[in-house]
Amino acid sequence: MVGRALAGRFAELGHQVVIGTRDPQITLARSEVDALGTPPYTEWQQDHPDIGLLTLPAAGAYADLLVNATNGAASIAALSAAAIGDRNGLVVMDVANPLDFSTGAALPSLTVVNTDSLAEQIQRTFPNARVVKTLNTVNAAVMVDPGRVPGQHTVFVAGEDTDAKHIVTALLGEIGWPPNSVVDLGGLVAARGTEMYLPLWVATMRSLGTADFNITITRA
Amino acid sequence: MVGRALAGRFAELGHQVVIGTRDPQITLARSEVDALGTPPYTEWQQDHPDIGLLTLPAAGAYADLLVNATNGAASIAALSAAAIGDRNGLVVMDVANPLDFSTGAALPSLTVVNTDSLAEQIQRTFPNARVVKTLNTVNAAVMVDPGRVPGQHTVFVAGEDTDAKHIVTALLGEIGWPPNSVVDLGGLVAARGTEMYLPLWVATMRSLGTADFNITITRA
Repeated sequence: MVGRALAGRFAELGHQVVIGTRDPQITLARSEVDALGTPPYTEWQQDHPDIGLLTLPAAGAYADLLVNATNGAASIAALSAAAIGDRNGLVVMDVANPLDFSTGAALPSLTVVNTDSLAEQIQRTFPNARVVKTLNTVNAAVMVDPGRVPGQHTVFVAGEDTDAKHIVTALLGEIGWPPNSVVDLGGLVAARGTEMYLPLWVATMRSLGTADFNITITRA
Repeated sequence: MVGRALAGRFAELGHQVVIGTRDPQITLARSEVDALGTPPYTEWQQDHPDIGLLTLPAAGAYADLLVNATNGAASIAALSAAAIGDRNGLVVMDVANPLDFSTGAALPSLTVVNTDSLAEQIQRTFPNARVVKTLNTVNAAVMVDPGRVPGQHTVFVAGEDTDAKHIVTALLGEIGWPPNSVVDLGGLVAARGTEMYLPLWVATMRSLGTADFNITITRA
């Protein structure tokens, strides 16, 4: 859902976009709505004929900038399959959350938490990549259309590489997040903060009865 | 700091307030500013002569409503010493955070996290208490004077007992949080969310260079 939303939006803005998947034939063969309500890929593809569907290695080799929109628990494996370790300096925009809904608990837990984060794991595993954590604090619809929520609201960036954060911040600007809505939290350790915000996001979503919300940081 | 801020504010509003401490003589004997910059108790007491300083058991027996503003790692021990288990139905307003700064890591971690929370631990340990988690998402100055931050911003309540949440929400109203600034997150499990927000709070505080900030939830 998140990958399609971002891919569609970037393509709409004129970027050349491909989606990587383990096995394109299997992805294309699916004909049912999945458990999360996501329509079959072929249905979405009809509205986005310009977006290629490649294997993970092919997509990883193609990208000037790679968006990690995989399930958090599967992210390292997917990025390994995409061989991003071979791409020195590749900007990895990590929008994933390591959410674990499998326990059926009242709130989802995180598979990595507190003294580490998914974004830091990715950075450690692929030290030549330039990982920027962003957008994981809003749902897919708000990510690509912040105007769904009234007023100015906040999105975060965190990462070790300043140039990579500038590149990502410019992309955020293109999809509707003006520079003064972007809070730079500094180094990638702050991804612990944005990932650990997710349980509050889920509890708030349930309280409000909608995922079309966001937070605004207001200071004195 | 948090205890003094809330005690002073509630007393100013006409409530009868006492502070509980392990040993009042030791608290009164301290003459130096502590590591966090908190002035000696006697200095603060001069401006608040109406606020009593009692032992934990005496404070626990006195309270109609008890505020837990202790260090998260010490909360269970302090509440046990206050014998709140003997006070059937006591409303416990838990504003504490289980932050661990001891590792010297780039961000503090939490001593309880992800599949549990401090507020849930307190509720389990004292099943006759009515625990309401609130105010732990803002610093002490903003807690008692939300007008320090412009506009309307958000505070959360979570707890199992609806009446207890109403009592706490009314108190929040007295100190400057109008009902429409209070988001009820439902049961106490949501305290995981507000406690796990703390690393993001700390990272944002460092980025902004001030603790005088808060988040506003805005929905479509």
